Amino acid sequence: MVDPTEQPAAHRVVVIGGGFGGLYAAKALGRTAADVTLIDKRNFHLFQPLLYQVATGTLSPADISSPLRGILSDSKNTQVLMDEVIDLDPHQQQIVLQQGESLSYDTLIVATGVSHHYFGNDQWKQTAPGLKTIEDALEMRRRIFVAFEAAEKETDPEQRRAWLTFVVVGGGPTGVELAGAIAELAFKTLKRDFRNIDTNEAQVLLLEGLDRVLPPYPPELSAKAEASLTKLGVTVETKVLVTNIQDNTVTVKRDGQEEYIPARTVLWAAGVKASAMGQVLADRAGAALDRVGRVMVEPDLSLANHPNIFVIGDLANFSHQGERPLPGVAPVAMQEGEYVAKLLKQRWLGNTVTPFVYKDFGSLAVIGQNEAVADLGFVRFDGVLAWLLWIFAHIYFLIEFDNKLIVMLQWGWNYFTRKRGARIITGELMPEEDNAYGVQSSQAPVKV
Amino acid sequence: MVDPTEQPAAHRVVVIGGGFGGLYAAKALGRTAADVTLIDKRNFHLFQPLLYQVATGTLSPADISSPLRGILSDSKNTQVLMDEVIDLDPHQQQIVLQQGESLSYDTLIVATGVSHHYFGNDQWKQTAPGLKTIEDALEMRRRIFVAFEAAEKETDPEQRRAWLTFVVVGGGPTGVELAGAIAELAFKTLKRDFRNIDTNEAQVLLLEGLDRVLPPYPPELSAKAEASLTKLGVTVETKVLVTNIQDNTVTVKRDGQEEYIPARTVLWAAGVKASAMGQVLADRAGAALDRVGRVMVEPDLSLANHPNIFVIGDLANFSHQGERPLPGVAPVAMQEGEYVAKLLKQRWLGNTVTPFVYKDFGSLAVIGQNEAVADLGFVRFDGVLAWLLWIFAHIYFLIEFDNKLIVMLQWGWNYFTRKRGARIITGELMPEEDNAYGVQSSQAPVKV
Repeated sequence: MVDPTEQPAAHRVVVIGGGFGGLYAAKALGRTAADVTLIDKRNFHLFQPLLYQVATGTLSPADISSPLRGILSDSKNTQVLMDEVIDLDPHQQQIVLQQGESLSYDTLIVATGVSHHYFGNDQWKQTAPGLKTIEDALEMRRRIFVAFEAAEKETDPEQRRAWLTFVVVGGGPTGVELAGAIAELAFKTLKRDFRNIDTNEAQVLLLEGLDRVLPPYPPELSAKAEASLTKLGVTVETKVLVTNIQDNTVTVKRDGQEEYIPARTVLWAAGVKASAMGQVLADRAGAALDRVGRVMVEPDLSLANHPNIFVIGDLANFSHQGERPLPGVAPVAMQEGEYVAKLLKQRWLGNTVTPFVYKDFGSLAVIGQNEAVADLGFVRFDGVLAWLLWIFAHIYFLIEFDNKLIVMLQWGWNYFTRKRGARIITGELMPEEDNAYGVQSSQAPVKV
Repeated sequence: MVDPTEQPAAHRVVVIGGGFGGLYAAKALGRTAADVTLIDKRNFHLFQPLLYQVATGTLSPADISSPLRGILSDSKNTQVLMDEVIDLDPHQQQIVLQQGESLSYDTLIVATGVSHHYFGNDQWKQTAPGLKTIEDALEMRRRIFVAFEAAEKETDPEQRRAWLTFVVVGGGPTGVELAGAIAELAFKTLKRDFRNIDTNEAQVLLLEGLDRVLPPYPPELSAKAEASLTKLGVTVETKVLVTNIQDNTVTVKRDGQEEYIPARTVLWAAGVKASAMGQVLADRAGAALDRVGRVMVEPDLSLANHPNIFVIGDLANFSHQGERPLPGVAPVAMQEGEYVAKLLKQRWLGNTVTPFVYKDFGSLAVIGQNEAVADLGFVRFDGVLAWLLWIFAHIYFLIEFDNKLIVMLQWGWNYFTRKRGARIITGELMPEEDNAYGVQSSQAPVKV
């Protein structure tokens, strides 16, 4: 893949994964003499923090995606490969690509992230999709908008109610953002669009197993978030466990009592598990994994006994700072990627660097228009100010400038009109190949 | 569906199809006492003239789509139904929806358009997708960008050449626009993005069976268009017939000689045939169909012997003006939709109206940046002026204002940077369920 005649002596760095961790590492190595290869299954970097806005019809996939080749086109030492890594030989210092070709490295950076975790109920994957990829987001969008269409046509009141019931499982940031956005859709954006249904009759339930939403945040912010969600029309239920999702019914356990919620649209925001590379690293390089399969890393983010293999981003369990491992958020991944790049540059100069330290600039979660909560450590606040900070932070970090413009414009337009341009249902909807109401169709490959 | 208690005496107009014809008819009937129902399989109106820009990575689907409910939300007498009409009973004045429910009408307007026509070679549908729907466009986009990714990884020179060969079949406006856009991609947008291939080696072939591109246009404009395409790097071949598309090879016949073109990406822009409603109208209402299944209509766009059934847009063959039937373009459909609305309003007042007359404001075809051809009847020109007119006309007719802003911004950005934000490959690409290089994967449902 990498033509050795170009730079015979160059040090070969292979980065697996073009998310925040891998991309920031590759960018930081762009102006070095190293020979860098960035491998990703997809040809674009996805700005995951805004994925819920694609799922709820505010943004288009391309608005939050940037072609990796475009981002790195000026890094002449960097090669982008659209491929999947399926195996690793740390002794030969080679990785194996999906077609069986192998590719050698001097340094390997693994940043393949995490996927949904259904706590052993993988059959729920079909009935309650999660939100990690563009396809996930478009499948969620399809289900949400198809539900309103189906309700408009449904004559049986109970069925109609089930179509108008949206259950979000998991009260973390993603769940809070999804529930808030769906409530705004039902109670604001769509309220004049239907003739047979009153979208105000929609029910948006946010289910959290612990005693409050946004568990990682300080309790008073959780309370503020819950109050804002309630004001938006979201029914927040804490200390409830989902025990089954089947036949358009969600079974929950509350204080030992089982309850049944008829709902056609169930969205999963509850848990994540490590991507497959975690197991590969365990099998081939003896990596230690945590409960959800994340890789335990050394203070310098390397693998124990493998100083030339690094694991960063959501896939890494970095437990050398604070009592809990670092959270799976974009800032952690970015800083880890930049740290490893810095470490390598120093290593090539024969220097060593101090262990990785995460600089926490705080946490933000958006609930709805003018509503967000912020915890900057030294100060905590909510409301419009937090919302503006959230917008600024997200616009600022959007990789490519054209995306920033488009997203700002979309948001500006939505803010003043409450319209959502991207509430289109795509993917085949013909009855012969698909249930026009979309729910059973989740058996089919995710469509956009 | 329509609640009769609302307007007991209201005249029921059912419009089938939310394209230019159906939407403009529905909009024009929005402020009447009639009870209007617009039925479409999709929940959005698609601005088809810009679909090729979705296919080539300039725009996102939502940029050229507007939710029908949003467009018609102020027409309180209008109901939007996301459904498909599968049958018709003109005597009972009822249509049958996909789930079997029937819906009665006093007046029926059929505007279901056309689909691809492979001249009896429907197996080509898989290997040479056409461009009618969002899914078509995203499949084309996927194939185009996957081809470059595959070429970057391909070590065999012949295979690489096949990956870098793009064949567009059909030299009409769509074929010309597609070929021009792909040439700009290969020779401008992507030229710095790859390391192993030189995108200048790409071949973009435009194949036309007649003796010139843009056959419906005056010969000198066809010549101008061909010259511009050639300047862009497109290889234009006229008087060639495609006789087979198989095993990544296009077989063409030129002056009786067969030639074989190895090409991994073949795009179909050659022919259209009437949608299924045409046959339904023939079977149930004795409608006469033309060679490609379009419905022959009376001078007032009604069906012979069925003054309360109208056929408009691409599905209609209107042969009462000029020697050829009116072309299947947006302006014809819009004017026909508005004409039928006007006719009905007059009919309800007991008046009659004169037959439909199409006002031809001219034809436009874009070839590439700063390059288009225009024929306004009284004047013909090309180059930047035609290109600016093309941009103005398309922005002007984009249904929703937010889309106009987004598209203008995208175009402005692309113009100055030559970037294309939407060149992302979506749809599952995992080897186990799909060929990562996308070509065989066309067997799977179209993905976005």
